[in-house]
Amino acid sequence: MIKALIFDVFGTLVDWRSSLIAFFEAFGRERGQSADWPDLVDEWRAAYIPSMERVRRGELPWTNLDALHRASFDTLAARFGLESLNESERERCARAWHALEPWGDVREGLGRLRNVFVLATLSNGNVALLIDLARHAELPFDMIFSAELFHHYKPDAVVYRGAVELLGLAPAEVMLVAAHNGDLRAAAACGLRTAFVARPAEYGPHQTQDLIAADGFDIVARDLKELADELC
Amino acid sequence: MIKALIFDVFGTLVDWRSSLIAFFEAFGRERGQSADWPDLVDEWRAAYIPSMERVRRGELPWTNLDALHRASFDTLAARFGLESLNESERERCARAWHALEPWGDVREGLGRLRNVFVLATLSNGNVALLIDLARHAELPFDMIFSAELFHHYKPDAVVYRGAVELLGLAPAEVMLVAAHNGDLRAAAACGLRTAFVARPAEYGPHQTQDLIAADGFDIVARDLKELADELC
Repeated sequence: MIKALIFDVFGTLVDWRSSLIAFFEAFGRERGQSADWPDLVDEWRAAYIPSMERVRRGELPWTNLDALHRASFDTLAARFGLESLNESERERCARAWHALEPWGDVREGLGRLRNVFVLATLSNGNVALLIDLARHAELPFDMIFSAELFHHYKPDAVVYRGAVELLGLAPAEVMLVAAHNGDLRAAAACGLRTAFVARPAEYGPHQTQDLIAADGFDIVARDLKELADELC
Repeated sequence: MIKALIFDVFGTLVDWRSSLIAFFEAFGRERGQSADWPDLVDEWRAAYIPSMERVRRGELPWTNLDALHRASFDTLAARFGLESLNESERERCARAWHALEPWGDVREGLGRLRNVFVLATLSNGNVALLIDLARHAELPFDMIFSAELFHHYKPDAVVYRGAVELLGLAPAEVMLVAAHNGDLRAAAACGLRTAFVARPAEYGPHQTQDLIAADGFDIVARDLKELADELC
């Protein structure tokens, strides 16, 4: 008997790639500057997993995602002709992650699911980022669960177990909804229920990963409206 | 420049006393049982501060508010003729704290404030309790901050500082809204802004504490509508 749904955010609920490309296109027009913005965005996202791994291995003390995004942006800026950006412009770019657009099915799907279940995030984004994102995209969460609350990044088990404990529920009463097989496998290993939602355009036209669900998840849905059809 | 408002919950936003008395009146009718329900509720609330103090002094390991409520209810049950309640009935009583009614001004006030500020709880209630309460009372929070996230109860400074840090803000950008002078004084000592909202009926007709604001708070308001008039 599922009582709460917890959601991966980047890729599962919001289209970070198109949103960030649109941000940089506007930013470039404003500054009279052009660059391969899709390539910048893809490189920036590619820096995300290695930067978290440095925290996970203890090479960095706990560092939240805003700070990781900012550091990797600074590393990339010179390569994309952005070395002249000042501090406030760099912060503005890093904060573009706070204002991403949801996929087309998300608001309706979450609205229907919230009539039946407690809804929360379970994201590697930090709390302030996720608050801004939920307000911007009008996503009706009851709670923001973030890696930042546990000082561990997904897929560390303590993140999934920590959210379940704070919900006051058993693992089997909580379902993770995600577009990423690795995230769902880690949740399943902690006893949570799992729903795969395909986002085959998350990484753009040449996506090769997470196109289909691995075996063994409880639900595989095309989008959140189909998930609501199954669960409500 | 205030960016986020964080709210004490019990007494400030919800009328725990009338709500719990109404719960026990219905519960008693259902069981054909009468007792001095207002006295039970007052005694139950009176057990709250000493039970938290035991955690604060380290006599108890971290124990969340649901568990403290349940333990103090079990202590009181015999005195109020409730010794025959079974496990699930006792849990039902303890969970009455999850479904309290807001004061009359709260929904409108929060709705107006949320157009301008990030809104969050800052409560000694545990996360699951606060999620249920916000859903029941339809309170539109962006985030649930709870003592449980920090394993410290208010007025320990780490609770106020922890919420400010997770918001990614400076203390002076965050305002605590509360009906209790002690809570506000502790927040002010951490550099937060403060708003006192009077709730002279929180403890019933014979309330003697927190009837008026101590000196030095940034705003003193009659209710959340007046607070919205001041801030928006």
